[in-house]
Amino acid sequence: MNIGILGGGQLARMIALAGYPLAQHFTILDPGADAGAVGLGKHLHGAYDDMKLLGELAETADIVTYEFENVPADVAKFLSDHTCIYPPAKALEVSQDRLTEKNFFHQLDIPTAPFAPINSLEDLEKAMLEIGYPAIIKSRRLGYDGKGQVVLKSAEQLAYAWASMQDAPSIVEGFIPFQREVSIIAARRPGGEVAFYPLSENSHSGGILRVAECREVDPLQEAAESHVTRLLEALNYVGVITLELFDVNGQLLANEFAPRVHNSGHWTIEGAETSQFENHLRAILDLPLGSTQARGHTAMVNFIGGMPDTEQVLKIPHAHLHLYDKTARKGRKVAHATIRSDDAEQYKESLQQLIILAEASDDS
Amino acid sequence: MNIGILGGGQLARMIALAGYPLAQHFTILDPGADAGAVGLGKHLHGAYDDMKLLGELAETADIVTYEFENVPADVAKFLSDHTCIYPPAKALEVSQDRLTEKNFFHQLDIPTAPFAPINSLEDLEKAMLEIGYPAIIKSRRLGYDGKGQVVLKSAEQLAYAWASMQDAPSIVEGFIPFQREVSIIAARRPGGEVAFYPLSENSHSGGILRVAECREVDPLQEAAESHVTRLLEALNYVGVITLELFDVNGQLLANEFAPRVHNSGHWTIEGAETSQFENHLRAILDLPLGSTQARGHTAMVNFIGGMPDTEQVLKIPHAHLHLYDKTARKGRKVAHATIRSDDAEQYKESLQQLIILAEASDDS
Repeated sequence: MNIGILGGGQLARMIALAGYPLAQHFTILDPGADAGAVGLGKHLHGAYDDMKLLGELAETADIVTYEFENVPADVAKFLSDHTCIYPPAKALEVSQDRLTEKNFFHQLDIPTAPFAPINSLEDLEKAMLEIGYPAIIKSRRLGYDGKGQVVLKSAEQLAYAWASMQDAPSIVEGFIPFQREVSIIAARRPGGEVAFYPLSENSHSGGILRVAECREVDPLQEAAESHVTRLLEALNYVGVITLELFDVNGQLLANEFAPRVHNSGHWTIEGAETSQFENHLRAILDLPLGSTQARGHTAMVNFIGGMPDTEQVLKIPHAHLHLYDKTARKGRKVAHATIRSDDAEQYKESLQQLIILAEASDDS
Repeated sequence: MNIGILGGGQLARMIALAGYPLAQHFTILDPGADAGAVGLGKHLHGAYDDMKLLGELAETADIVTYEFENVPADVAKFLSDHTCIYPPAKALEVSQDRLTEKNFFHQLDIPTAPFAPINSLEDLEKAMLEIGYPAIIKSRRLGYDGKGQVVLKSAEQLAYAWASMQDAPSIVEGFIPFQREVSIIAARRPGGEVAFYPLSENSHSGGILRVAECREVDPLQEAAESHVTRLLEALNYVGVITLELFDVNGQLLANEFAPRVHNSGHWTIEGAETSQFENHLRAILDLPLGSTQARGHTAMVNFIGGMPDTEQVLKIPHAHLHLYDKTARKGRKVAHATIRSDDAEQYKESLQQLIILAEASDDS
């Protein structure tokens, strides 16, 4: 089969690497001449809304998938009309708009933090009387890694915060003190077969994911599976999905979902029997899903801004490195590394060493 | 770094797939327009002794490696003179000639079956008086998967057998009844750091490897490590090596070695923490070697001659498939699949199912 991918960054790269053993061929649309994945298939070099290239993509690819959720609605519509797009366009539509997404969670009885739509300063002032401080205002669309968000700590901030949103349709969300953020990654085939990975426990800093640890046994696994199952079924979903959740005293509140493979699941390459990338492909190709079982203790650490020293990473016992072949610049994810060990003590020690290396190479 | 590979078949393909995460780039010399690995790097399309292409390869690649041991001596010499070739040319020289190889084993006190050089019918008749039947006569060079070999069962066969060798310098080897064939795969860095995989226990049929099972705990592991260590040191070896051994009542006799990644180590992709392909790259790049630990019960099954049905393979619990993107033809390896499971019973059952599928698709 020929699989089209919108986007040629590290996620597309890892999808394509997982696809070669299944004899899949790839057509990758990306505006970057040297994006990390483009050497792994046929590169359609241009903008995501270039209709000529989209026509070529639809012609070449049996199935189109994507590595980012901000695929323009008319692009998704065009691809749906002319080829098969997985995950389905409905998942894009819902996940692209934080308000639609939160309402969707509510319809499915998936709890969230309190939220309200904001289209004016008045909306914001009124909503904050109910939601209380601290809270966070976000544009409904195009939020990514902490951009387009303002934390609200007091009523004096509201006018400034709203002004900084530049009239973008927004949403305000109550900031519930949570113990941790977790994500559940699941894969679903067209017929409904679903596989769940063990929860990832995620640590952020500066709005960017830094560490994701596999929680092979977690008291909230079952609740997370129940939430994501409702989402998968309501969307008649095909492919890998990621649902981010806050653990608030043992109750899970949904934050957002990504209709794609996810940074918090990169530990699955070495740490699970079948990676999220391979299971995404198996799902969209309607092939039996692979075992999602964790293999020992495992976690992933991101390298942001600065390149890791390969030798330094690989000399940490049980470390595995994934370079994205990107030029380093401030705040940019350039690599990740994982630890996988059967020995709990060795795992902790290696993970600690890896985190120290990642912090040293981070320029932010 | 840019890594050159002589040969663009499935071994090169799996090396390149393992190299992308380490941000390696590949230049692949192969006469086939659509060899399985050529999409993964720059393809130098031509014969292995095309001096113009070899010049380009030496110019482009920082290190050249190979996926087959029959690299012509003058090609190895040229590459040694103009770039870096790993594993070293000496390993090629020894492994290309069965007599040199067996003599080398003896110099290193690595036991073998009895053998004798054969250059005439008289040599053969004389040798067989000592070696006894059954035995096997093989050409000293270019033997592969059972071609160029005659089994000798009685003295009446000798004239015919020698005639069929067409005057090729040959070797006769006593056929010692062995309980099993095992192989040990090891990786060595330039400074001498060595990592050993658990033994593979190999089953052949028709001179072709069919099944390789990882022996996580084996009473002969230590003896095999001792033998391969002597070989690695004597060759001042860099990269992955494979030593095939016969288990004769608990004593290991060396059969042959391959100066490369090996079919009997394909289970390491899912079944070991670091695959033989990644460790080959780490070794030749002089990077710390990754853990060779097995992850549960694991084995590999080859698909020969006929393509497996992807759906059928992947629905076997814990099965993983590796298609080589080759056209199927009689006796040709077109794919392999692995089983990896923590559960011994499930492992046995899945492996059995996989073997049945492989036998059904085999045309030989």
